[in-house]
Amino acid sequence: LPAASALAGRVLAGEVKAAARLMRGLDDGLPEARRALRELHPHTGRAFVVGLTGAPGAGKSSLADWLVRRLRALGRSVGVVAVDPSSPFTGGAILGDRIRMQGHALDPGVFIRSMATRGHLGGLSPATADVVAVLDAMGKEVVLVETVGVGQDEIEVASLAHTVVLVTVPGLGDDVQAIKAGILEVADVFAVNKADREGADRVVRDLQQMLELRRAVAARPGLEHGRRHHMRDGAAREPVDATLWEPPIVKTVALRGDGIASLWQAVERHRAQLEGTDLGRLRACARARAHFVALLRERLLAGALERLEAEQGRLDELAARIAAREADPFQLAEELAARLTA
Amino acid sequence: LPAASALAGRVLAGEVKAAARLMRGLDDGLPEARRALRELHPHTGRAFVVGLTGAPGAGKSSLADWLVRRLRALGRSVGVVAVDPSSPFTGGAILGDRIRMQGHALDPGVFIRSMATRGHLGGLSPATADVVAVLDAMGKEVVLVETVGVGQDEIEVASLAHTVVLVTVPGLGDDVQAIKAGILEVADVFAVNKADREGADRVVRDLQQMLELRRAVAARPGLEHGRRHHMRDGAAREPVDATLWEPPIVKTVALRGDGIASLWQAVERHRAQLEGTDLGRLRACARARAHFVALLRERLLAGALERLEAEQGRLDELAARIAAREADPFQLAEELAARLTA
Repeated sequence: LPAASALAGRVLAGEVKAAARLMRGLDDGLPEARRALRELHPHTGRAFVVGLTGAPGAGKSSLADWLVRRLRALGRSVGVVAVDPSSPFTGGAILGDRIRMQGHALDPGVFIRSMATRGHLGGLSPATADVVAVLDAMGKEVVLVETVGVGQDEIEVASLAHTVVLVTVPGLGDDVQAIKAGILEVADVFAVNKADREGADRVVRDLQQMLELRRAVAARPGLEHGRRHHMRDGAAREPVDATLWEPPIVKTVALRGDGIASLWQAVERHRAQLEGTDLGRLRACARARAHFVALLRERLLAGALERLEAEQGRLDELAARIAAREADPFQLAEELAARLTA
Repeated sequence: LPAASALAGRVLAGEVKAAARLMRGLDDGLPEARRALRELHPHTGRAFVVGLTGAPGAGKSSLADWLVRRLRALGRSVGVVAVDPSSPFTGGAILGDRIRMQGHALDPGVFIRSMATRGHLGGLSPATADVVAVLDAMGKEVVLVETVGVGQDEIEVASLAHTVVLVTVPGLGDDVQAIKAGILEVADVFAVNKADREGADRVVRDLQQMLELRRAVAARPGLEHGRRHHMRDGAAREPVDATLWEPPIVKTVALRGDGIASLWQAVERHRAQLEGTDLGRLRACARARAHFVALLRERLLAGALERLEAEQGRLDELAARIAAREADPFQLAEELAARLTA
């Protein structure tokens, strides 16, 4: 790996190879890569980050593919981060739809990065934020972050994206009921994909009802706890403010590219809304806070576990004593944390 | 709340009201409740904890309901923890199937606890492990932990349960392809629910193929990285060892209770396998380790953020400076962590 500042300089100049090398270096945990990322930080914060999320099989990859085409037609440079729940034994190959995106492989205005999570099971890998930062620093105007699954990922993408698009489809179990409530509340735009299928109108109606319920609740005073969502570890995210923004519902058929222009328009309207109000500033703070807390948590725990092993012996042996009820995990955790943070 | 030791004593005696009060106290973060939990810890580790996981709409609640009936018929006492992605504005009411479980409300041998996650979005709340510990201490022989969603929850339930049952159904998008690879690898038993539907046999065949692939990979030397999965923060979980245990696939129709006896038999066979081999001991250590690391992480971060606010001013203001690129989050996190854990 080249020295940090040389590498950072080449990424800032938009060099694709340098960006790819930096991402690999970050994956491998190279200190030089982390230093380069730090040098890039003051140059980040310009890209518009859009999260695409929803259940498996909703067609997120196809939508991402069409959004990239649309953005390229509008002359924008694009980065795509696909967060894949890969398996070490398949190398993530069971989700083959990533391949469709390869149509953009020859376009220098598009940079696609698939996150193979390497044994980090579930959830957005901390490295996702790093990859977004690299794409941002290399000058990509729009970064699409696609997450697979219905769970923590979707919530966490809200701590990374300016605008979150929740992709639903008709015929997924109990439809809207199958959407986790927490995800509904971080969605800024809804895409009802496969809208040519039976049941699409019912999904739209159900979503409208949910949004009306949300507006009714938001209009009642004294319900502050329903309006601000706490991410893991106290980082907060300003939710959709029902009085400022009514999440639009856009029908799409990703298979043939229907509704893509409308979907992007809805996203752009949300962006304008963020830029014109306090909400955008509040969300920028929440994103910065979530990123910082994640960095701090990672480094703290690593340091504390190292120190614990130095004092108490191997963590696995300690775990064996805890499992045998010979050691008290509450006391150990409290004592160590109190000692370290006093 | 009664004093910690009095409350702990009543829970150990199996008093339902005391257990419910303790759980509420833990929810509210009362120090007396945490002290009671600590007193209970030496008396835990006896319950057999079974995780029930799978996509929304797979019928996990109905299966849990039938398993409870089966266990009661076998004379076992049962605890159920239902982890619900509740929303503050609906109180979780959109997932109404919890109500079905209320048929057991008058049975003193069954204790059901629904986890309303109170703004903690996604993922298993740290409190889930606490509730399992209380049920364990009060003498429940079997504890079922039901998690909703397809994501981090399912992986985390593996750090809590002795045996993980993955519930699948025909007709959910691309079926097996829609199952996250990581979840496949923590499943000890597969239930193919709604097995009277078209496509059930295909799901069984697909699962069999996946398992065969896994066995083939496991048999190749030098693939250690595929055999041990790291949870968040380095806690590890011994996966299904393909040479020791072949996860059985059981067809069920939860709507009419078909296949429940076979499902429970499969779970019991896995339990016997755990008890007879090193795998059970390794997993107990991994569970203890995951619990301890979670406790440590929680307390460390809280302490560090408190100290940071004392030194640097309000975290929200710090986040605003980070968002404006006036402060460097990498440097701040590294310096603070290094200082605290040196």
